[in-house]
Amino acid sequence: MRITLEHGSGGRKTDELIKRHFLRYFNGKEIRKMDDGANFGGGFVISTDTFVVNPVFFPGGNIGDLAVAGTVNDLVSMGAEPLFLTAGFVLEEGFDTQDLEEVLRTMSDHLERLNMELLTADTKVVEARDPGNPGIFINTTGIGRVYRELPGREGIRAGDVVIVTGAVGEHGFAVLAHRLNLSSSIKSDTKPLWGLIKPLLDQVDVKFMRDPTRGGLAQTLNEIVENMSFGIKIFENSIPLKDEVRGLSELLGIDPLEVANEGKMIVILPESQAEKAINILKKHPHGKEASVIGIITEAHPGVVTIENPYGAERILYKPTSEKLPRIC
Amino acid sequence: MRITLEHGSGGRKTDELIKRHFLRYFNGKEIRKMDDGANFGGGFVISTDTFVVNPVFFPGGNIGDLAVAGTVNDLVSMGAEPLFLTAGFVLEEGFDTQDLEEVLRTMSDHLERLNMELLTADTKVVEARDPGNPGIFINTTGIGRVYRELPGREGIRAGDVVIVTGAVGEHGFAVLAHRLNLSSSIKSDTKPLWGLIKPLLDQVDVKFMRDPTRGGLAQTLNEIVENMSFGIKIFENSIPLKDEVRGLSELLGIDPLEVANEGKMIVILPESQAEKAINILKKHPHGKEASVIGIITEAHPGVVTIENPYGAERILYKPTSEKLPRIC
Repeated sequence: MRITLEHGSGGRKTDELIKRHFLRYFNGKEIRKMDDGANFGGGFVISTDTFVVNPVFFPGGNIGDLAVAGTVNDLVSMGAEPLFLTAGFVLEEGFDTQDLEEVLRTMSDHLERLNMELLTADTKVVEARDPGNPGIFINTTGIGRVYRELPGREGIRAGDVVIVTGAVGEHGFAVLAHRLNLSSSIKSDTKPLWGLIKPLLDQVDVKFMRDPTRGGLAQTLNEIVENMSFGIKIFENSIPLKDEVRGLSELLGIDPLEVANEGKMIVILPESQAEKAINILKKHPHGKEASVIGIITEAHPGVVTIENPYGAERILYKPTSEKLPRIC
Repeated sequence: MRITLEHGSGGRKTDELIKRHFLRYFNGKEIRKMDDGANFGGGFVISTDTFVVNPVFFPGGNIGDLAVAGTVNDLVSMGAEPLFLTAGFVLEEGFDTQDLEEVLRTMSDHLERLNMELLTADTKVVEARDPGNPGIFINTTGIGRVYRELPGREGIRAGDVVIVTGAVGEHGFAVLAHRLNLSSSIKSDTKPLWGLIKPLLDQVDVKFMRDPTRGGLAQTLNEIVENMSFGIKIFENSIPLKDEVRGLSELLGIDPLEVANEGKMIVILPESQAEKAINILKKHPHGKEASVIGIITEAHPGVVTIENPYGAERILYKPTSEKLPRIC
């Protein structure tokens, strides 16, 4: 079988690739969890991600924003304070050093604000795929220290609520609009979320978090219920969505729930703490549109459903593949 | 300025790129040392490397051998026991899943033998540079625990000896011969060196280690003396070299001292322990050709010289760039 771009989309095809090929050879305790990161002792957690977004510069950010935010948000989702980063750069021949400096400056600014240190790095150069438009790939591996031990998926109970920290679909649609040369005001939401999430960890009992990146909300919510004795029911009209995203979504026939976010977190916690959590999130500039979007239910274990404003309920499946490759 | 393949060669051009662009934005304590890894607390060390070798399968190994050995050897060179690995895969569209499985199996076998665990991984798919010959890039980040605290470069003194654990130039020449379609029996030396180095750490006082990869012995020896108050003098006829490597080197006019190794270590220790160290190394299958190749000298600080069999001494410079790109 040959690899296709769909295998990198984060949807069902990626799942298949990982389960059929990767997990056959790697089956340690940590990797089998298929989480976004792992504990390795001493209170440390680690997460790794490679960023291959095309174009390198997009409305609202560049690959440097993604390379920091993507890995930091994986650490944050594990209840960890992000501390250190390593970076592996693959530059395509012909890439401009001024563009490189812009990417490095972006990363460096984020690290400074997060009080994180880049520990070590590596640089390779390869031939360009498209010599007229050379790009860059960045792998970042992040190390954090557990700040709050979260119960994880096993601690989730029927009646718990599902919160999303802001409007969805912005990163994927921003890259898509840019690539299709559509006039659009949508900007990527790419941002590290430690500042937003830390007060939440300090003040409420978060059970589980996950950032809905590749495959969007639909992918991530389905990953949460997979093989569990609970399901998730979400309410369509409670999902925060910017007008421009809704418009582009209707124009292109793409469900915004299947589109990547790079600055949002799904948070699951007891219903009794939902209001307090929303108030805490709304105090932060990145959490203004935080909303309870659904509940944990025993009615349909392993399944995510979505109820429309007229009360009709349908299954929200994992996307087969993302509508466009290389958005992160 | 535009990036060229030479910037990825590991020689002077790579140095320039790192110093002019990267260190301008990243200047934490650890990264400024320009070591192959960093300490981050709790006795842990970390190292990261991206592997882009072309071809993916070469005589003596494949990119999976490199992805484990390269990162493990960086940890080992810091006196650390390798414990954990993360991996970021970038697959080119069209790459065959059977080839992928072969690479994964190779990595998995090494990890098992090393008693290491793959903690977490990430996979992306990109368009192929050459659709007729799709490839794969692998970033690995390794975590180890300090096994012996080494004095480092600051602990090196005039009179100390420089050991190399085996014959040089094999990885680079194996890839080169394969790429040029030359008939050759040279095999890459790619291998993880923990098993070879551990007994050394147990029994002698190692001061400093570094694995001579991109840019070969010439690059690495020069990095060791840079900005230091000592120099290194090596003896040409003490450098272990396989006949096939010598032959190909003469045929192509390429200095084997400038060619990459992926299964060798440079070890610096007091002269009084040299014989013991060589005996320990020779007991291991990967150390049969271990040899004292030079001494630390006060005569020319910051400079590496090489003495030929007739007693003539010349400067051994850093290679400007490697003779072929993408050997690791």
